[in-house]
Amino acid sequence: MTESFTREYDAMRRALALAVTPGVPLHPNPRVGCVLLGPDGSIVGEGYHHGAGTPHAEVEALKVAGELARGATAVVTLEPCNHTGRTGPCSRALIAAGVARVVIAQRDPNPQAAGGMETLLEAGIEVDAGLLADEAAEVNRSWTFAHRNGRPFVTWKFATTLDGRSAAADGTSRWVSSPAARRDTHLLRGLCDTMLVGTNTVEVDDPQLTVRGDDDQPVGEQPLRVVMGERDLPEDRRVFDDAAPTVHLRTQDPAEALRTLYADHDRHHVFLEGGPTLAAAFLQAGLVDEVVAYVAPMLLGSGRSAVGDLGIGTIADALHLRLVDTTVVGEGAEANVRMIMRPTKGRDKEGTA
Amino acid sequence: MTESFTREYDAMRRALALAVTPGVPLHPNPRVGCVLLGPDGSIVGEGYHHGAGTPHAEVEALKVAGELARGATAVVTLEPCNHTGRTGPCSRALIAAGVARVVIAQRDPNPQAAGGMETLLEAGIEVDAGLLADEAAEVNRSWTFAHRNGRPFVTWKFATTLDGRSAAADGTSRWVSSPAARRDTHLLRGLCDTMLVGTNTVEVDDPQLTVRGDDDQPVGEQPLRVVMGERDLPEDRRVFDDAAPTVHLRTQDPAEALRTLYADHDRHHVFLEGGPTLAAAFLQAGLVDEVVAYVAPMLLGSGRSAVGDLGIGTIADALHLRLVDTTVVGEGAEANVRMIMRPTKGRDKEGTA
Repeated sequence: MTESFTREYDAMRRALALAVTPGVPLHPNPRVGCVLLGPDGSIVGEGYHHGAGTPHAEVEALKVAGELARGATAVVTLEPCNHTGRTGPCSRALIAAGVARVVIAQRDPNPQAAGGMETLLEAGIEVDAGLLADEAAEVNRSWTFAHRNGRPFVTWKFATTLDGRSAAADGTSRWVSSPAARRDTHLLRGLCDTMLVGTNTVEVDDPQLTVRGDDDQPVGEQPLRVVMGERDLPEDRRVFDDAAPTVHLRTQDPAEALRTLYADHDRHHVFLEGGPTLAAAFLQAGLVDEVVAYVAPMLLGSGRSAVGDLGIGTIADALHLRLVDTTVVGEGAEANVRMIMRPTKGRDKEGTA
Repeated sequence: MTESFTREYDAMRRALALAVTPGVPLHPNPRVGCVLLGPDGSIVGEGYHHGAGTPHAEVEALKVAGELARGATAVVTLEPCNHTGRTGPCSRALIAAGVARVVIAQRDPNPQAAGGMETLLEAGIEVDAGLLADEAAEVNRSWTFAHRNGRPFVTWKFATTLDGRSAAADGTSRWVSSPAARRDTHLLRGLCDTMLVGTNTVEVDDPQLTVRGDDDQPVGEQPLRVVMGERDLPEDRRVFDDAAPTVHLRTQDPAEALRTLYADHDRHHVFLEGGPTLAAAFLQAGLVDEVVAYVAPMLLGSGRSAVGDLGIGTIADALHLRLVDTTVVGEGAEANVRMIMRPTKGRDKEGTA
């Protein structure tokens, strides 16, 4: 391994760490870090993207380096952008600053922003791409997934008794999950940019669909609230309050809903919290990418099934999931088991699974 | 804390460790350890019960000590027996050996064997009971439970999909649990002295109900196989092969079945592996003391429920369990989540919960 490779590898690790600086929002922009190495291998500038409307990582690093950027190597976690958004294209900024070499981790999966690498090459700059690419994709997991697949990543969350019930025979369901599990759910909601339910859930359960803290008040930036289904809804439902924006998608087709959320609303990560029927529709369409189940150590023996009919008639056709995490959430009487799972086959375009 | 108390406390810890010496069978006799302390506090003898038909712990320790037993303190995990079984009563042996003081952890919950403490006291021996009593009861958890409650401890084991199904819509159920979960089940079966199913399971699934090793051959001492229900059964069922004894209890009453297993068959720990209906009958009767659930990360959406109707109509009446252990059994595609639970109220006569 050459000395310069080692330096660039270390610099990329540093750039990845910069990208995930605490406080940087997950949405809607990708998280990016950049380190500038002088000809002697020392760091002459670094920066990271602080979120939509602020300078890109490369621009921040170039500003720190000033004249020292001339002849430097830019080590950046994502292919520099090529389009003029609120900031100018980063590829042009790197060329203008006289950077000699650019090392990229992840190529940009967003067709609107891609082309930066070609622009750099045309300007005679040496470009190398792919160093720690998987790690870089994981830094923006749902953003990467959405641009590669043309739809948001879908996390389906549900709470169930040990015997697979989401409500008792009379329809009562407060609460299947423990207070600790519900607090945990709010943390997971906060990692997504969209919450999705069906019209039936809005009519029957009337959830607010917000990220709330211990005092049950909304906290932080709220995900977009999306209600899916063709029925009209009463205006007094909590989902229409002013705690967050809400969209009513008048379709029953999960694929169409997801395409719309990506194309028209720039959404990358949907937290699906609908009832058994909506969940079954997404499962049957192969449009669930992650399952989060809160299993309560509780038995009902009858009542509403946590999952609707999947059209599966025999055990050989069961929908298998791969367990990726099992955690006991809460203590004592509040202890629920949280299982996080991924589908075992298909749709694996993430590059990191 | 006095010096002699410290010595007796340490000796009791040693006696408890002797009681659970690897290789000592769990059934049908209690596991017992005994340490003899000379007047100067040194250990002059020790012993443990090796299983039915072998000398009791006290007798073994007295044999080691010989003449040094005179004036000694016997530290024993269970009240010395008072009845003449295959060996003479230990209370008489301690008196005959000239022991001056006896320190007991757990009083004997078995009415047939109790009375040893009174016999010792009548002989003028100083007796102290209760030191590390809970730890001693835990050494013989199901034995203690059975004698206190007049029925065996019941562990209900079931395998379920994430959505509470034990079989698909067409009745197929091989396999809901992973191979790793099934291997784990055989380990748990081996800790019990009885396996119980209903006539329906025997007719439909035809299980052998044995403890089997990796080669699927029976290993070790086999629990009693018990089939419960009034129906006649075909003689060619595997449960009637010669791998282990089998009893057919012609009743549908869980309480009656358990009383019979305790009183007529000296059974202390039942591993209940019946179908949803039998499980529901035990649950409704409040006769499940421990639940072991293997949750497979798999969805069916329809099919046979893992638990039958419990007569619960509303969420407030749900049967709550307390989670005591959560373990991922197996790796990768074989990973199942094993949840071990106890009822949250009632029937808590174990003294260790």
